[in-house]
Amino acid sequence: VAEFQIQPLPLSLLYTGTLTHNLQLLVDPLRSGDARALARAITMVENRSPGWAELLKALFPQTGRATILGLTGPPGAGKSTLVDQLAKHYRKHSRTIGIIAVDPTSPYTGGAILGDRIRMQDHFSDPGIYIRSMATRGSLGGLARTTADVATVLDASGRDLIMIETVGVGQDEVDIVRLAGITIVILVPGMGDDVQSIKAGIMEIADIFVINKSDREGAERVEREIRALQALAARNDHWTPPIVKTVASEGIGIEELVTAIAEYETYLQKGDLALQHKVESWQQRLVEMLRDALLEKARSQLAEGRVARYAAEVVEHKRDPYTLVEEIVAKLARTR
Amino acid sequence: VAEFQIQPLPLSLLYTGTLTHNLQLLVDPLRSGDARALARAITMVENRSPGWAELLKALFPQTGRATILGLTGPPGAGKSTLVDQLAKHYRKHSRTIGIIAVDPTSPYTGGAILGDRIRMQDHFSDPGIYIRSMATRGSLGGLARTTADVATVLDASGRDLIMIETVGVGQDEVDIVRLAGITIVILVPGMGDDVQSIKAGIMEIADIFVINKSDREGAERVEREIRALQALAARNDHWTPPIVKTVASEGIGIEELVTAIAEYETYLQKGDLALQHKVESWQQRLVEMLRDALLEKARSQLAEGRVARYAAEVVEHKRDPYTLVEEIVAKLARTR
Repeated sequence: VAEFQIQPLPLSLLYTGTLTHNLQLLVDPLRSGDARALARAITMVENRSPGWAELLKALFPQTGRATILGLTGPPGAGKSTLVDQLAKHYRKHSRTIGIIAVDPTSPYTGGAILGDRIRMQDHFSDPGIYIRSMATRGSLGGLARTTADVATVLDASGRDLIMIETVGVGQDEVDIVRLAGITIVILVPGMGDDVQSIKAGIMEIADIFVINKSDREGAERVEREIRALQALAARNDHWTPPIVKTVASEGIGIEELVTAIAEYETYLQKGDLALQHKVESWQQRLVEMLRDALLEKARSQLAEGRVARYAAEVVEHKRDPYTLVEEIVAKLARTR
Repeated sequence: VAEFQIQPLPLSLLYTGTLTHNLQLLVDPLRSGDARALARAITMVENRSPGWAELLKALFPQTGRATILGLTGPPGAGKSTLVDQLAKHYRKHSRTIGIIAVDPTSPYTGGAILGDRIRMQDHFSDPGIYIRSMATRGSLGGLARTTADVATVLDASGRDLIMIETVGVGQDEVDIVRLAGITIVILVPGMGDDVQSIKAGIMEIADIFVINKSDREGAERVEREIRALQALAARNDHWTPPIVKTVASEGIGIEELVTAIAEYETYLQKGDLALQHKVESWQQRLVEMLRDALLEKARSQLAEGRVARYAAEVVEHKRDPYTLVEEIVAKLARTR
């Protein structure tokens, strides 16, 4: 397996650097922070509307400046409330905010969009906060990738801080949270018998733990359990994730959380860890982008309805799917 | 885009039909239901150990007979208890059971494996129940695909009923559940403010709803909410998912749930819906398998460490990732 050199591409595949007039009309106001241009650009990226890739290419040079916070936790942990409180706090210090609320709600029922509007009302008069829900189950680009692209747009628009909140249990949510430079895992007392496994699953990704609704019975027990799990699993970077107790609905513990975030940011800067984290994150994103691009190309080579017919043949046991896929891959390599 | 015909493959890619001696020593006892062969085969498939693809090819002709139940619900809904109760019931009627507990716990902390052992103790003396936890975050094949492959192995081993239980919120869990012929969504009263969005997200995939812990306050409200959502979203197949109330820990409602499952099975058989569902499910699986196979091939063409260097270049803003991926795809098409 020899390494290959990137060579000039056929014109059809090359981004020539000349944006269409319409796209430029979007890029310029977006870069200067215009909220309507931002909304349009995000919709374009989310829906994979024509030009979305060119838009991202054009925006990429402006990115990499924002701090990205990932917040995850089980349903009912109070993530939205906590995110809103953090947003309020950072706004007092004049930092501009982008919030991406990743919601497993399907576009069908529209729950996320409704939630969006309700939340936006609180911040309606403040252009410094932009909230977007991703209700994109079955989205073209995949949820994690689309979220990453939306974060790129927010970053390019000059937002200082981007918060990505997700319901955290599945692999998808973990992938989403991995985008973040700083990951906050939110737990609540009294989550029942599955909590142990959730906590175990997210131990590795948490940079900071929050026990929200910490005025409830059982907060001490959750804290002890986190400490016990931490004792078993030391991090490579020697950071011990702090545990912050909050009652987000009353604003309690928000200052402490902000301090914990700042401390971790400082820690990251010291040891080049932020850079290392970004390289790892991009490594993963590049692989995902490559995987998607390869599939897209294969699909364009396969005739309409071909996969459905293959599937029918598999169900009828006329073909075994494992051999079939090998055959398709080999065949595609010979077709152009 | 012309459709292409599958032609004979290079020998290196072809499954020649001659299993290695060792593999045959696994396949034969597995087909006759041997539990140790089953465990070994599942481990092989889960770890993508050498020969895993040949094993699946060899087993494929024996599959397609098992009923696959998918059970999903938020953490704390009592999924394991419900699955165990269903297993007990079906065992009384001499059906053999395979249980795949998909757990977002990482292999690192080993929580799932522990849980596995604890649950297995209950059924230790009964070879008719086989339980396997999938603690495979970051698994080579992806969680949904690995789960599908493990289900294939269980199916080939002659299990009558396969139950796949997952914590249901993310896209990953939805993909897993889509494997199932029959999907049961488990809710509980008093889940807090995120329940609305979860329920909305899983409305489309539920064939049967269970309200577990239905002796708790709020069960009626959950039922009303499901009914209200159902009124908004009629299914294409005109099936109205029934709502079964259970208290799994006391065995209450299990008979009713079994009846609901049987009724839906009958309904599926009548209208060729079962077949249609299988074709759709295989269509999705084939695309995923193709995507993974294409990526695997690309990775074998890319030199070790190349992606990491690309990632570093992206972080340093020397390259934009979108153009880079296009370049890699075009280049790979020219390399063999």
